Amino acid sequence: MDVEVDIAIVGAGPVGLFAVFACGQLGMISAVIDALDDPGGQLTALYPEKPIYDIPGRPAIRADALVADLMAQAAPYEPIYLLGQQTADLCESSDGTFTLTTAAGTKVRARAILVAAGVGAFGPNRPPLDHIRDFEGTSVFYHVGKRETFKDRQLVIAGGGDSAVDWALSLADIAKSITVVHRRDSFRAHPANVAAMHADDRVNVRTPCQLKGLEGENGKLTGIHISEIGGDPETIKADALLALFGLAGDLSPLKDWGVEIERKSIPVDPATLQTSRPGIHAIGDVADYPGKRKLILTGFAEAAAAAHAAHARVFPGKAIHDEYSTTRGVPGQTPDAAQKTA
Amino acid sequence: MDVEVDIAIVGAGPVGLFAVFACGQLGMISAVIDALDDPGGQLTALYPEKPIYDIPGRPAIRADALVADLMAQAAPYEPIYLLGQQTADLCESSDGTFTLTTAAGTKVRARAILVAAGVGAFGPNRPPLDHIRDFEGTSVFYHVGKRETFKDRQLVIAGGGDSAVDWALSLADIAKSITVVHRRDSFRAHPANVAAMHADDRVNVRTPCQLKGLEGENGKLTGIHISEIGGDPETIKADALLALFGLAGDLSPLKDWGVEIERKSIPVDPATLQTSRPGIHAIGDVADYPGKRKLILTGFAEAAAAAHAAHARVFPGKAIHDEYSTTRGVPGQTPDAAQKTA
Repeated sequence: MDVEVDIAIVGAGPVGLFAVFACGQLGMISAVIDALDDPGGQLTALYPEKPIYDIPGRPAIRADALVADLMAQAAPYEPIYLLGQQTADLCESSDGTFTLTTAAGTKVRARAILVAAGVGAFGPNRPPLDHIRDFEGTSVFYHVGKRETFKDRQLVIAGGGDSAVDWALSLADIAKSITVVHRRDSFRAHPANVAAMHADDRVNVRTPCQLKGLEGENGKLTGIHISEIGGDPETIKADALLALFGLAGDLSPLKDWGVEIERKSIPVDPATLQTSRPGIHAIGDVADYPGKRKLILTGFAEAAAAAHAAHARVFPGKAIHDEYSTTRGVPGQTPDAAQKTA
Repeated sequence: MDVEVDIAIVGAGPVGLFAVFACGQLGMISAVIDALDDPGGQLTALYPEKPIYDIPGRPAIRADALVADLMAQAAPYEPIYLLGQQTADLCESSDGTFTLTTAAGTKVRARAILVAAGVGAFGPNRPPLDHIRDFEGTSVFYHVGKRETFKDRQLVIAGGGDSAVDWALSLADIAKSITVVHRRDSFRAHPANVAAMHADDRVNVRTPCQLKGLEGENGKLTGIHISEIGGDPETIKADALLALFGLAGDLSPLKDWGVEIERKSIPVDPATLQTSRPGIHAIGDVADYPGKRKLILTGFAEAAAAAHAAHARVFPGKAIHDEYSTTRGVPGQTPDAAQKTA
């Protein structure tokens, strides 16, 4: 399937989804491409059930509910979702039209591109244990999709960051047992939470200690080999492993696009969010400029600014009449129709 | 009453309210000063019942509901509201502490100031008609607080912008009659709405035409003198006037603060939102920098960035541990307590 739109948005995380709306408000139709099968980016893939507290006007909202609300807000502008497709080739015609080809072979023609790629196409950092992939999804996990998954299980949590400590505390009342394994004595997590974890007699903390191997068959884990640093190996009973070693982001699909990448970010002009390549803007966590805060709400504002800047390329010489949603009326309806429903 | 806080926020509009939360997340307590009696700024004073469509994650929310939600989100950080008080004097001690005195004589001591003043302390532009103040609040209005106010009334709407056209269409089904008076033939409003207004036989449009005087007594309007440009005066029956000539913003209370003001905006460094005076940041519609979009959602992101920048002055040398609300936990609780409620 080939599609022709005004704007191609790379990344269906919260900022990419809001960019659909921001572009739609200015009369631009979008296609959204994401390597993941579901929209929402990290919110869907990593912490769908976690509450978020810093979305303006939402004192507390679950990550999955925020994704649903952003999709509902974008829906009137009828975005084309191209999910489960990594971006591959990009070419630019002499008239400035981009053609973006996905790994699945879909061609997206667009006048401008907004890259809302977060940390890039991402996956978990796997611990180097033999046969670990055989247990994934049944006994080995890299994030908490549903808390229920860990109910009554003998759980080993590996890692030393906020996630490991948070989940140890949070899952303590549902798991049968919890052992936290970390290769250092100190945790890189909120001190109050670390103290709470050590004080919690439902959580067994093993440091400095490393994972050595997995025991079990047919995807069913029965034990985990660990060893204290410099000590002898031992086996602890476990039927679930939650390995929280962070994400490996991969921006390499963007590297061939002629967009300047510095370490894991794309430098942009903060006024227009334009990258080093005209017509390609970057927004959200992937975009960098002086004073950048990597917050979802910051990405929302960047999406609005980038949509505005891209408008000049999509519709050269066309003025933007209404900047304010209160005047413009119901999204996706003509202002005329909007009045009648107001 | 004198108060001592970390941050003084000038302006209790949506951006000022979110700034309370953004500061609170970084451990800073705020006082919020506003000339108006109620929080919410223009949302409360000008269009409490209007739906807003471009708040990220809120496909449609009434302005008054957004204000309530922002206050609920700020509440855990127990801000001190100083409402109905215009800012007056500002002095800075040699240690960098500001003392802000309001017109009511309240002194607020704070380490940093966030100016979220919108268009400034604002009021309506009044048409120059004799005795107009005698009718204000009963027969003469400058904004629509509640639509019900205009039920079954013979309403004259004066003005030629989006508000005049929008309200003519929106109030047509509730008012007894509507006459729109504008001094030019063309309206500065959305073309589709202007066409809808002309096509709507419930709305009588008089152009080019001016208001000349008011008839009535004891605050009860009975008629309005108008005249077509170059024509004879006439009187039309009316018991309500909605005069929509815009707002006159007034930043003069800020002028003595040594903060550079350009026309009606305060230039800031986009990375820190700092004004020309160290320790004073400006956010929301009043702040200006290249690429600035005057949207509420833009002000939210600016509030987060300004809070971050101000933190260095409020707590010199103290690191910010948790940037992410999902890790930090329930606002206003210690992370420890937050875990237990998660």
